Amino acid sequence: MTAPLIDNLQYCNWSPKIFRELRAGGVDAVHVTIAYHEELREVLGNLTAWNRWFEAHPDLIFKGLTGDDVRRAQATGRTAVFFGFQTPTPIGDDIGLIEIWHQLGIRFMQLTYNNQSLLATGCYEAEDPGLTRYGRQAVAEMNRVGLVIDMSHSAERSTLEAIDASARPIAITHANPHWWHPALRNKSDAVLRALTGRGGMLGFSLYPHHLKGGSACRLEDFCAMIAETASRYGAENLGIGSDLCQDQPDRVVEWMRVGRWSKTIDYGEGNAANPGFPPMPVWFRDNRDWDNIRQGLARQGFDAAEIGGIMGGNWLRFYDRNFGPAE
Amino acid sequence: MTAPLIDNLQYCNWSPKIFRELRAGGVDAVHVTIAYHEELREVLGNLTAWNRWFEAHPDLIFKGLTGDDVRRAQATGRTAVFFGFQTPTPIGDDIGLIEIWHQLGIRFMQLTYNNQSLLATGCYEAEDPGLTRYGRQAVAEMNRVGLVIDMSHSAERSTLEAIDASARPIAITHANPHWWHPALRNKSDAVLRALTGRGGMLGFSLYPHHLKGGSACRLEDFCAMIAETASRYGAENLGIGSDLCQDQPDRVVEWMRVGRWSKTIDYGEGNAANPGFPPMPVWFRDNRDWDNIRQGLARQGFDAAEIGGIMGGNWLRFYDRNFGPAE
Repeated sequence: MTAPLIDNLQYCNWSPKIFRELRAGGVDAVHVTIAYHEELREVLGNLTAWNRWFEAHPDLIFKGLTGDDVRRAQATGRTAVFFGFQTPTPIGDDIGLIEIWHQLGIRFMQLTYNNQSLLATGCYEAEDPGLTRYGRQAVAEMNRVGLVIDMSHSAERSTLEAIDASARPIAITHANPHWWHPALRNKSDAVLRALTGRGGMLGFSLYPHHLKGGSACRLEDFCAMIAETASRYGAENLGIGSDLCQDQPDRVVEWMRVGRWSKTIDYGEGNAANPGFPPMPVWFRDNRDWDNIRQGLARQGFDAAEIGGIMGGNWLRFYDRNFGPAE
Repeated sequence: MTAPLIDNLQYCNWSPKIFRELRAGGVDAVHVTIAYHEELREVLGNLTAWNRWFEAHPDLIFKGLTGDDVRRAQATGRTAVFFGFQTPTPIGDDIGLIEIWHQLGIRFMQLTYNNQSLLATGCYEAEDPGLTRYGRQAVAEMNRVGLVIDMSHSAERSTLEAIDASARPIAITHANPHWWHPALRNKSDAVLRALTGRGGMLGFSLYPHHLKGGSACRLEDFCAMIAETASRYGAENLGIGSDLCQDQPDRVVEWMRVGRWSKTIDYGEGNAANPGFPPMPVWFRDNRDWDNIRQGLARQGFDAAEIGGIMGGNWLRFYDRNFGPAE
């Protein structure tokens, strides 16, 4: 079977139009965020909304739970939708909820989203004391059930400690190397080396604040960065996590940034003059533009197997190994 | 494969001792109640507690989801544990939670527990207006996902309307015929005829307040009642739902009866002079006594196939047909 096309992070304002665009672009699987700050009851509401989408559009999408669901998507011309949390809020202080969420199909969970959590520290905190006592317990439980640890929005020391404490590979689902573009959300060479050295995956982000040159970033520069990343850490640990937030109103980026934790606005990677969603690069406007990246990778000299891996084959291998209980 | 032994309702104070007794008694599957009055967060706590039991005792028990899990239990010498609610409280006013609970493994839900609910009327209310608007919507959704409607604690009209409104067979998991013992919880001939006429199942209760003669009920009388029930409605729609509440303190029966809805005690089928759990009949003290009932049925003239059906084969057929999505 040919390698699948997998985007390992999107947060679109989902609609039948976007589901059709996923099909038009040949996307076999997408990992979607279903919690930024939401608590248990609200996350269940997001799951019921997705259940209604799945009921209404079985010809386009279905709920993905395992790597085999990606193959089923390829075989049936549909898109498998995998769920993840960008926050540990939905487990609260109850470690047992890790298994519960896994049973409901959650496959990725960030230990922290920008701020300090009960488990670890986010990338916008001034101090980073690393994993907490509860955080270490949670890492072991996530390992046990097969809920993947995602450190995309975490701070340096916490990320390194999570990589070290985890008995299984972890993921940074959507970020780029800090050496390419020094955003707070992009990752250090030390983190990327530790991550990939343990079999972990990096998903390259297309969110303009994570790109050199922002919205004006050129496809050639983005793909040259991927080539350099592959030469440093190996092409087999790389994939895409576009962070596509198509059709979202600007109030959603505000919700992402401040949730309920602040009464004043925090601009994250943006600023007061540019508070909303930045425009996407012209070569990646939506899910119909994946061939541009594929062609850009070919022009960098990647061979067909490497391109297949980066465009989804590497995520599929990671799914196969990490979405089930520990051996 | 030989017919399984299935008890389709217990609410024990679970412990490794009782799990070993399930094995000693050859119980292949048990449907356990995990909510009487609990709301969503509390039910998840009950599920996480069960997840810990499953993690700690994989040699004795595992979570049952389908009829095939009963066969797996038989093949591996373990007990498959199925979950059910005796109340619709955990779905609140959100119909989407029906599918969510099904995804977490809930396989039976009562539309009401003794009192009026958002969906239907319980057996201790003075008036019974039948299914509500929401109740009719919930029946259709339970049919769609494969969450079995249980009317054990429901009032007459609501029960008849649920049988009629449901496109799939329903269950009365634990009750006896009213014509044998006129407890408020036991079921009329009209209900049992309608239930079984649509392929629904009756599970005979061993809770002393549901037995003629109470705790002193004789095995012979209990089995003669089963024989009469089989002659009226067919042996193929009968099973056991013992309502065994082993090792529970009396405060638990008080919780069952009043939950949080009353500041004064309601004695249910008991009374002020006898407020606690009544003693079980001497021929059914715990899960090691199933052979007594099997032998009692043989003495009534049931053949081996009928006994196999009543002791679990009929429930297994019902599980196979009703625990998954509608065709």
